[in-house]
Amino acid sequence: VQTYESIRHQTLNLCAPLTVEDHVVQPYDFVSPPKWHLGHTTWFFETFCLLPHYSMDAFDPHYGYIFNSYYESVGAHVPQNRRGVLSRPTLEDVRAYRAHVDARMREVWNDQPEWRQVVQLGLEHEQQHQELLLMDVKSILFAQPGKPTYAAVGEPGADIPRTSGWDKFAAGIYEVGFDGDGFSFDNEGPRHKVWLDEFSMAKALVTNGDWREFIEDSGYQRPELWLADGWRWVQERSILHPLYWTHSRGEQWCEYSLSRGLQPLHAENPVSHISYFEADAYARWRGCRLPTEAEWEVACGNQSCASHWQWTRSAYLPYPGYQAFAGAFAEYNGKFMNGQMVLRGGCFATPTGHYRPTYRNFYYPEMRWPFSSLRLAR
Amino acid sequence: VQTYESIRHQTLNLCAPLTVEDHVVQPYDFVSPPKWHLGHTTWFFETFCLLPHYSMDAFDPHYGYIFNSYYESVGAHVPQNRRGVLSRPTLEDVRAYRAHVDARMREVWNDQPEWRQVVQLGLEHEQQHQELLLMDVKSILFAQPGKPTYAAVGEPGADIPRTSGWDKFAAGIYEVGFDGDGFSFDNEGPRHKVWLDEFSMAKALVTNGDWREFIEDSGYQRPELWLADGWRWVQERSILHPLYWTHSRGEQWCEYSLSRGLQPLHAENPVSHISYFEADAYARWRGCRLPTEAEWEVACGNQSCASHWQWTRSAYLPYPGYQAFAGAFAEYNGKFMNGQMVLRGGCFATPTGHYRPTYRNFYYPEMRWPFSSLRLAR
Amino acid sequence: VQTYESIRHQTLNLCAPLTVEDHVVQPYDFVSPPKWHLGHTTWFFETFCLLPHYSMDAFDPHYGYIFNSYYESVGAHVPQNRRGVLSRPTLEDVRAYRAHVDARMREVWNDQPEWRQVVQLGLEHEQQHQELLLMDVKSILFAQPGKPTYAAVGEPGADIPRTSGWDKFAAGIYEVGFDGDGFSFDNEGPRHKVWLDEFSMAKALVTNGDWREFIEDSGYQRPELWLADGWRWVQERSILHPLYWTHSRGEQWCEYSLSRGLQPLHAENPVSHISYFEADAYARWRGCRLPTEAEWEVACGNQSCASHWQWTRSAYLPYPGYQAFAGAFAEYNGKFMNGQMVLRGGCFATPTGHYRPTYRNFYYPEMRWPFSSLRLAR
Amino acid sequence: VQTYESIRHQTLNLCAPLTVEDHVVQPYDFVSPPKWHLGHTTWFFETFCLLPHYSMDAFDPHYGYIFNSYYESVGAHVPQNRRGVLSRPTLEDVRAYRAHVDARMREVWNDQPEWRQVVQLGLEHEQQHQELLLMDVKSILFAQPGKPTYAAVGEPGADIPRTSGWDKFAAGIYEVGFDGDGFSFDNEGPRHKVWLDEFSMAKALVTNGDWREFIEDSGYQRPELWLADGWRWVQERSILHPLYWTHSRGEQWCEYSLSRGLQPLHAENPVSHISYFEADAYARWRGCRLPTEAEWEVACGNQSCASHWQWTRSAYLPYPGYQAFAGAFAEYNGKFMNGQMVLRGGCFATPTGHYRPTYRNFYYPEMRWPFSSLRLAR
Repeated sequence: VQTYESIRHQTLNLCAPLTVEDHVVQPYDFVSPPKWHLGHTTWFFETFCLLPHYSMDAFDPHYGYIFNSYYESVGAHVPQNRRGVLSRPTLEDVRAYRAHVDARMREVWNDQPEWRQVVQLGLEHEQQHQELLLMDVKSILFAQPGKPTYAAVGEPGADIPRTSGWDKFAAGIYEVGFDGDGFSFDNEGPRHKVWLDEFSMAKALVTNGDWREFIEDSGYQRPELWLADGWRWVQERSILHPLYWTHSRGEQWCEYSLSRGLQPLHAENPVSHISYFEADAYARWRGCRLPTEAEWEVACGNQSCASHWQWTRSAYLPYPGYQAFAGAFAEYNGKFMNGQMVLRGGCFATPTGHYRPTYRNFYYPEMRWPFSSLRLAR
Repeated sequence: VQTYESIRHQTLNLCAPLTVEDHVVQPYDFVSPPKWHLGHTTWFFETFCLLPHYSMDAFDPHYGYIFNSYYESVGAHVPQNRRGVLSRPTLEDVRAYRAHVDARMREVWNDQPEWRQVVQLGLEHEQQHQELLLMDVKSILFAQPGKPTYAAVGEPGADIPRTSGWDKFAAGIYEVGFDGDGFSFDNEGPRHKVWLDEFSMAKALVTNGDWREFIEDSGYQRPELWLADGWRWVQERSILHPLYWTHSRGEQWCEYSLSRGLQPLHAENPVSHISYFEADAYARWRGCRLPTEAEWEVACGNQSCASHWQWTRSAYLPYPGYQAFAGAFAEYNGKFMNGQMVLRGGCFATPTGHYRPTYRNFYYPEMRWPFSSLRLAR
Repeated sequence: VQTYESIRHQTLNLCAPLTVEDHVVQPYDFVSPPKWHLGHTTWFFETFCLLPHYSMDAFDPHYGYIFNSYYESVGAHVPQNRRGVLSRPTLEDVRAYRAHVDARMREVWNDQPEWRQVVQLGLEHEQQHQELLLMDVKSILFAQPGKPTYAAVGEPGADIPRTSGWDKFAAGIYEVGFDGDGFSFDNEGPRHKVWLDEFSMAKALVTNGDWREFIEDSGYQRPELWLADGWRWVQERSILHPLYWTHSRGEQWCEYSLSRGLQPLHAENPVSHISYFEADAYARWRGCRLPTEAEWEVACGNQSCASHWQWTRSAYLPYPGYQAFAGAFAEYNGKFMNGQMVLRGGCFATPTGHYRPTYRNFYYPEMRWPFSSLRLAR
Repeated sequence: VQTYESIRHQTLNLCAPLTVEDHVVQPYDFVSPPKWHLGHTTWFFETFCLLPHYSMDAFDPHYGYIFNSYYESVGAHVPQNRRGVLSRPTLEDVRAYRAHVDARMREVWNDQPEWRQVVQLGLEHEQQHQELLLMDVKSILFAQPGKPTYAAVGEPGADIPRTSGWDKFAAGIYEVGFDGDGFSFDNEGPRHKVWLDEFSMAKALVTNGDWREFIEDSGYQRPELWLADGWRWVQERSILHPLYWTHSRGEQWCEYSLSRGLQPLHAENPVSHISYFEADAYARWRGCRLPTEAEWEVACGNQSCASHWQWTRSAYLPYPGYQAFAGAFAEYNGKFMNGQMVLRGGCFATPTGHYRPTYRNFYYPEMRWPFSSLRLAR
C-alpha cells in the first residue's frame, strides 16, 4: 500500500505549484485540465477496483460521465474537447473525491489478491497521467500571455554529456517485446523475433543547435524534405520552428521551459516538441532516417532513461500474436492502433520506475506537445 | 462617486455565488468567463479614464491585450474564443486590479469634469456587462452535468399578472429615438420621425404554455413556418425546443432557472431563450408577426421594465442622421450594424436605472442565450 | 405565346457561346451550372403549369429532385452545392426537356386563363435566371486558368455620360412600393408611406478610378472604416480589391470582363463586383453613407435602367402589410428575409422589360459575384 | 512503340462509354474528372520525356498548372479539389493534346535509349490511372440520381470458384519485395528478409453474404469491434453498410455495379468498397485479423490476379534500404508514406500485365472508393 500512497500522492505534488484556475482550462482539444487528470485517475480505481467488488454507491452519480475518458464499455462520457468547460466539480470537490477513494482503497487493501492486477494497472495508469500532466501544464502555462514558470522539474540542461558518432549493429534475427515477470502493457508483447538488416544508430540526440541549422537552411520551406501530409501541415499552420520556440526577445531564439520560463535557447540541449513530420524532414535533410522501433529497442533499450522521448518511423500497430487486455481494458491500448507513430524512450517527466525498454508510446504525426525528440539512424 | 462605488460593487456581488472555477470557463465562443467580465470592465476605466490623463503605468503590461474586447484602435486583443483559456491572471489578481483602479479613480474623482462623460459611459458599460454576466453564468452552470443553481435573482415567475387582448394604434407620423438630457448610447439617436401604418400589439408576452402548443403542433418540423436560414439552423442543430428546456425528468417538460435549477415548466411564465428564428416562426404560426422596433417603442416604450427582452422584426441599422461616439468609442456600437436583429425592453437582469424606452439591444438571429422573449403584433 | 417563345429562346441564346463543359461546372456553392438553369426554368413550367392541370407524366421521374431549387413544399431536391456533380442529364437531354415542355405549353396555351398568372411568374422567373446566368458564367469563365472571354454583352464602358454633383430631396412623407396593374413580385408591395428626412443623392455611380483611390489610401487595411463582420471577412479572405480585378500584367490593374476578358482597368467605368461590406466601408471613407432603399426609390426609381445594381443600407425585410404569394410561391421571396441587404436598379444583364423602379434585389453582405455597384448618399 | 500506342489507346477506350459531361465532374475531393486523367497522363510524357530533351514549347502554357498532380518540384498546380471546376480545356482540346503529344513521341521514339526508363514509368503510370479511372467513373455515375450503367467491364460475378479453408505457413525467414530485371516502383524494393511467425491465410475472400451476417449481428453498432478512429468515423458519417450498397428497392439489399447498375446483391461475390476500418472490424468480429503485407506476399503473391484489392494490417512505410526514384520522381511514392494502409493484389480493373506480386497499393483507412476487399488471417 506504500507504493499506492506514494504514487497517488505524487500526482497531487505535481499539481501543487498550480493555481486553482490553472487546474480548469483546456487550451487545445488534446490537452486535459489538471483537475480532470486528478479526477480521472481516481475514477479508474473507483470504477475498476471498488464498485465491481463492493456494494457501495459511486461517490457522485455524475462522475462516471465526467471522468470516464474513452471506455465505451462502461458508459457515456463528456466529449474530450469539453473537459475545459467543467467548472464543477471544483478542485476541492475533486480532492475530496481522491481522499474518499483512497480511504476506501486502504480499507479493502488486504482483500486485494483477486484484483491485484487491476490495482497495478491503475498505478501504471496514474504514472502515465503524471507525464501527461506535465505536458498539459506546459501547454496551459505557455498559453498565458505572461508565460509564467511552473517549478523546477529536472528538464534536460547543458549538463548532458556530449557524445557523437554512431553505433553499428549487424544484420540478424533479434528478439523484441516484453517477456518477463513484472508489469507491462498489452501492446508491449508478446516478445517476438524480427529480422533486422545492418544499421547504425547515432549516439546522441539531435540538439537545438542542430535544429537551428535546419531552420537556417530553409528546412521548413523546402517541400522535397517533407512527407506530403507534413508539407500540407507546415503550410496550413505556418509552422516555422519547434513548439515553444519564440523570437520574442528581438532576434535571439528563445525557448519556454517549465522551470525557467522564456529564456535564450541552449544550443547543446536536445531539441524537443517537434512533430513526427518535422523529425522525418530533419532526418531526410541530414541524409539519414529515423530508426524503426525494433532497431531502437535493440540499440537503445537498455540505456538509462533518456532525456526525451524519441520518434521512430514505425506505425503503432499490434505485434504478431498481440492479445489485448481482458474486459474493459481491451480498450486501453488496442483501439488506438491506427494513424499514430511510435515513440521510444523515457524522459525527465517519466516517473521513476515507470520506464521499461519495451515501452511503446504513440502519438499522431502532427503532435508537438509531448516531450518528443529524435535520434538519427542510417 | 457613490454611484460609481455602487455599480462597481454590484458586479462583484453578482459573482459572489460563484466558485473560483466558475469564473474561468467559457462553454461557447460567445460566452465570456466571469473573471473576464471583472477584468474587462476595469480595463475600460483604466484605459479610457486613467491612462490618457495621468502619467501612470498600466497595472500590468499584459492586461491591455487580455481585457480589451474589440477596440481595434487601442491595440491587439485575445481572440474572443480564447478567453476561457486564460487561467492567469487569477481571480485574486483580477480583484486586486479592480481595487487598484477603483482606488485611483477615487483619487482623481474631483478632476473629472473634462472626462465625466467617459466615466458615465464606463458605468453604463459596466451595467451592460452585469446583464451579460447573468446570461453567461446561466450558460456556464447549465453546461455542468449536475446543473447547479446560482442564487435567487428575481426571474419572472407565476406572479406575473395575466393579461390578454390587443392594443390598437392609429396610422400616422410618430417620433422615436432618444432626445433628452440624460445619458443614451449613440445608437438610440437622433430622435426622428417615422410613418407607421395602423397596427395592434398584444398586451401579453407569449408564454411557455403557448409555446408548448407550437411544439405539439409540430412547429419545429414544418418548413413553411420558417425563414430559410432558420430552417437550415433548426435542421443542422436538431433544435426541438427553447434553450434550457429539457425532458430529463421523464415525459414532463422541465426548465432550468438560475434561482431554482431544473424544475417543471411553468406554463404561465413568459417563454424565454428563443432565437429570432423561433420567434418569427411562432408568430407566423399564430397568423401574426413580430413588431418593428418603432411600433414597439410607440406601443410599449413607456411601460415599466418588462420581464424579458423582446425580439422585433427590425434589423439593427443606424437611425437617419446617426452619429457614432467620438474616438475609440466609435467602435462601441456602430460597427455591429450588420446581420443582427433588434430586441426591445428590459428584463429582470437589467440593473435598476439602466433601462430607457429608446434602448436598442441586438443579437444575431440564432442567438438563444439572451433572456429573450416575444410579443405578437398584427 | 410570342412573349413566352421569345423569353424561353433568349435563355438558350445566352448559353450559345458556351462549350458543353462550361454548362456543367460549379466553381462556388452559390454558382449554378448553366445546364441547371436551363433545366430549372423548364421544371418551373412543368411543375406549376402542366402537371397540376393535365393528366400527364413528368418528363423524367428524377427531374423533380434535380431541378427543384428550394421549394420544400414540392419535395426534396439536390443540395445546392451538389449541382456541379450532375453530369446527367446531359446538355442534350436538358435541351430535349425544354423542347418537350415548350411543345406542351404551346398545345395548352389557349387553356391558360385560369393559370395565366403562373405563366407570367414563370417568365419573370426565367428572366431573373437570365441575369443569374451571366453572373454565373462570369464566375465560371474567370475560374479557368486561361480566362476565356464569353461574348459581347453590353457591359458598361467608357461611353457612360460623366456626371457629378448631388440631387437634394426635401423631408416629408413619400410613397414607395408597387401599386399598379402589371406584374410585380410579392416583396415589392404593398405601396406604403414612409417618412424621409432631407437627404442628398450622388448623381453618378462610384467609378473604378474612385475605388483605386480607396485602395491607395489603404482602405482595405483600416479597421475603423469597416463593420466588424466586414473587417473579419476582409482579414480571413485576404480581400484587397474588387472581385475580377487582378495585377496579373505587372503593376497595372486589370479587370476581367465577359466581353473582353482580362484588360487594363478603365478608370471611368463604374466599379462593380464589390460586397456590401466594401461599399459600406468606401462610403464611410468618403464621409458619406449608402442610401436606404426608400431614398433610392424616391431619388432614382424613375431613371432608365442603370448600368449596375446598387447596394443600399436597407436590410431585406417585409414591407408593412406584406402578403406572400399563395401556395408554393410563398417560398419564392418571403423566406429569404433574413441577413441580406437590398440592391436597387437594373444592370446591363437585366432583360429588357424586366426592370421596375420598385424591384428589390437582395444578397448576403459578403457576396461579390452580382453586378453590384454603389451610389453615395448623405 | 506498339506498347505505347496500345496503352495510350486503352485510356481512350475506357472513356468511350462516357458522355462529355461525365468527363468533367468531381463528386468528391479524392475523385478526378476523367478529362483530367486524360490530360494528366499526357502531361506526364510531355513534361518528363519531351520538354527536357527537345527544344519545343509546351502545347499550352496553362496545362502545366492544370495537369500537374502533386509534383512540387515542377511548379504550382490546381488544388486537387478544384479539378471539377475546370470546364476548359474542353474534352476535345484534351484529345487534341493527346494526339499532339503522341505524334511527337512517335517522332522521337528512336531517340529513346537515354530516357527509356521514363517512358516505361509513364506507361506504368498511365496504367495506374486506368484503374483510378474506373474507380472514379463508378463514383461519378453513382452520384447521378438515375444511377446509369457504364459498360461491361469484367467485374467479379457468381462464376468465382467457391473455396474455403485455410493455408498454413511455417515460421521462418522469408524474402519479400521486388528484385528482378523488369519494371517495379521504388516502393516495392529492395527485396529484403523478414521473420514471420507461423500463420494461416484464408483461401477465399470474404463475400457479400458473409458481410450481411456482420450487419445483421449489429457489427456497425458495436464499439468493441472498432478502432477508435474507425468508431468515430462510423458515428460521424452514419456508416451502415459498404459503399454502393443500398436499400432502395424495398427491403432487399442492392449493389451498384459498373456493368449492371443497381441490382440485387449477389451473396457469393466478394464484398468490396469497404474501408480499412470496416475490414479490421469485420476481422475482429470473426475472431481473426487482417494479414500483414509480408504474410500476404508470401501466401498469395503468386496467385493469378485476384478479383479485388485486399487490405492488409501494414502501414504504408518504406522498406529497409528504400531508395526513392531520382529527381522529380522522388515525389512519386515516397512522400505518401504516412497515415495510409497497404492493399495487395490486383483486381478486374488492373490492366493486363500491370500486376506484380510485390505491388503495393495504399489508401487512407477511411477510403471506400477503391475496389477493396479482404482476406482473413490468423
